[in-house]
Amino acid sequence: MQPVLADSVRLTDDGVLILDRRSFPFERDWVLCRTAEDVARAIEDMVTQSSGPYFAALYGLVLKARTLEGRPFPEARAELAATGRLIENTRRTNNALRKAVHVVLDHVDAAGDVAHALEGALEGDRRYRARSQALGEHTASLLPDNATVMTHCWADLYLTETVRAAQQQGKTLRFFCTETRPYLQGARLTAETLIEMGVDTTLITDGMGAAVLQSGEVDALVTAADRVTMDGHVVNKVGTLGLAVAAHAFGVPFHAQVQAPDHAAPTAEHVEIEYRDGAEVLQVLGRPSATPRVKGLYPAFDVTPPRFVTDVVTDRGVFRAGELDKYYEGEQR
Amino acid sequence: MQPVLADSVRLTDDGVLILDRRSFPFERDWVLCRTAEDVARAIEDMVTQSSGPYFAALYGLVLKARTLEGRPFPEARAELAATGRLIENTRRTNNALRKAVHVVLDHVDAAGDVAHALEGALEGDRRYRARSQALGEHTASLLPDNATVMTHCWADLYLTETVRAAQQQGKTLRFFCTETRPYLQGARLTAETLIEMGVDTTLITDGMGAAVLQSGEVDALVTAADRVTMDGHVVNKVGTLGLAVAAHAFGVPFHAQVQAPDHAAPTAEHVEIEYRDGAEVLQVLGRPSATPRVKGLYPAFDVTPPRFVTDVVTDRGVFRAGELDKYYEGEQR
Repeated sequence: MQPVLADSVRLTDDGVLILDRRSFPFERDWVLCRTAEDVARAIEDMVTQSSGPYFAALYGLVLKARTLEGRPFPEARAELAATGRLIENTRRTNNALRKAVHVVLDHVDAAGDVAHALEGALEGDRRYRARSQALGEHTASLLPDNATVMTHCWADLYLTETVRAAQQQGKTLRFFCTETRPYLQGARLTAETLIEMGVDTTLITDGMGAAVLQSGEVDALVTAADRVTMDGHVVNKVGTLGLAVAAHAFGVPFHAQVQAPDHAAPTAEHVEIEYRDGAEVLQVLGRPSATPRVKGLYPAFDVTPPRFVTDVVTDRGVFRAGELDKYYEGEQR
Repeated sequence: MQPVLADSVRLTDDGVLILDRRSFPFERDWVLCRTAEDVARAIEDMVTQSSGPYFAALYGLVLKARTLEGRPFPEARAELAATGRLIENTRRTNNALRKAVHVVLDHVDAAGDVAHALEGALEGDRRYRARSQALGEHTASLLPDNATVMTHCWADLYLTETVRAAQQQGKTLRFFCTETRPYLQGARLTAETLIEMGVDTTLITDGMGAAVLQSGEVDALVTAADRVTMDGHVVNKVGTLGLAVAAHAFGVPFHAQVQAPDHAAPTAEHVEIEYRDGAEVLQVLGRPSATPRVKGLYPAFDVTPPRFVTDVVTDRGVFRAGELDKYYEGEQR
């Protein structure tokens, strides 16, 4: 069964429909973005996150291209590229937005026609899903039958494809997921989706991960990564680092999932960490959870050094954190 | 200035008044417990926590003793002791309840009169505050001026006495505190109290601790401990372990505060870990924060092995985690 979050950004005649992840699963509201600018704002406002922005970016550019019909190509192409930059700038830590823009512009350039944005978007969509499926299969192969897995935040298609592949391999998985404050993606998106997929799931707070890893019950820590640098630093939702350090201390392997390491980022200093509004830390789902007199800090991501990463699972297989160059071996760069 | 939480359990003619920490600082409700059984229920329901239950136990026994006036001593003493057991059983990980019962019964036994429960309670109150003050002074001495300290949960008098001692030593401290899900003691009690005391305070979620420790901004991790075993295992609010492991990984010292190591607990297996209702993990301040379809797990405490503990700060000074026997040196046990 396809979980609803695996198909939660949809191109329609009226615009791009995006399932609002901020209130899911309490509500199932779809936001209609009629323009590319609406899409950019939705990404910035976290209507969708994880792989959602990738799909939103693809189809946001299609909306833009629709408005450019009949314009001379160089002018239309320049406007589409400017919209691409607008979308890329909404969230700067994850590479996916740049990739989405790239695949659309590639098709447009090859055809010399911005109307080919749709083809580019469909190709980007297909490719992302195929690579996530491959990565899910490689991850599932690392897990024993009856494995207990801990995950953090919401790994989106990487998670659903891992579970699907494990189920196809005849393996039963059990999950611990962290609630992932401040937005509670784990408590809402991961927990709901795992249960949709029939997986035995236990929710813990973000502070409980180390104790559960210490207990010996967990066979593997598996999280997505927003970026992995060529020297094996894993950039992911803040909280990943603490779990990775604890997993290392208690002998639990940490498998970080990313379609490909980022050859534009030799090491961590090449990745910009996004700081979001500290006020988010003082509330839960819009309601105050802290004294109003304190200030909050909200680094959205953290960076796990390679010494705490067992391996990186990509669409091309599993690599040790120290040998990510092999991912690109034989490939022209 | 005395922060309100430092005097939040009060004996009156009508009963024991307890500041409700579950809704503080959003509301400042005082719960009036007219009987010792009311006090036991308030402790079990988490109206007060940290050192609050110690004071509540002292004065709860005074309420009980008041009802026993005129009864023959052996009978009255037996009833008082039974109430002591009732109170001790409300929360089993922390030793403080046993100590509170002990000091009251000691005074009663010495006088052969349950009316001396009041003297015992006042002596227990005075002693707890004096020992917390000594411990706070030893902790402050470990911290440089302009130190940035990370803390977890709510260390109550250990925290307020540490800050007070640092201020008396002319040191300025800055704090990061974790919100401490599920009850948010850090976001509500610690943050509010530090700000009451004039301390620059930044709130983070429980998942952000490792990233902040990695950043190099933090000079020390300081938490209270509910229990410290003789071989240096630190039992404290769940989440402490993850911070301690991260502090160790990134070279930040971890000072655990406890009045005395527990000579009844040679090692961790002698400490019973309290599991609270997993449904608590699915809500924040009474409002759902997770899909209702998932189950929660709530170990209230975790156990930090001595290899992650730099030292243990007691009322008698600072001891390495591996030499806690020295605390009792020369003392008849």
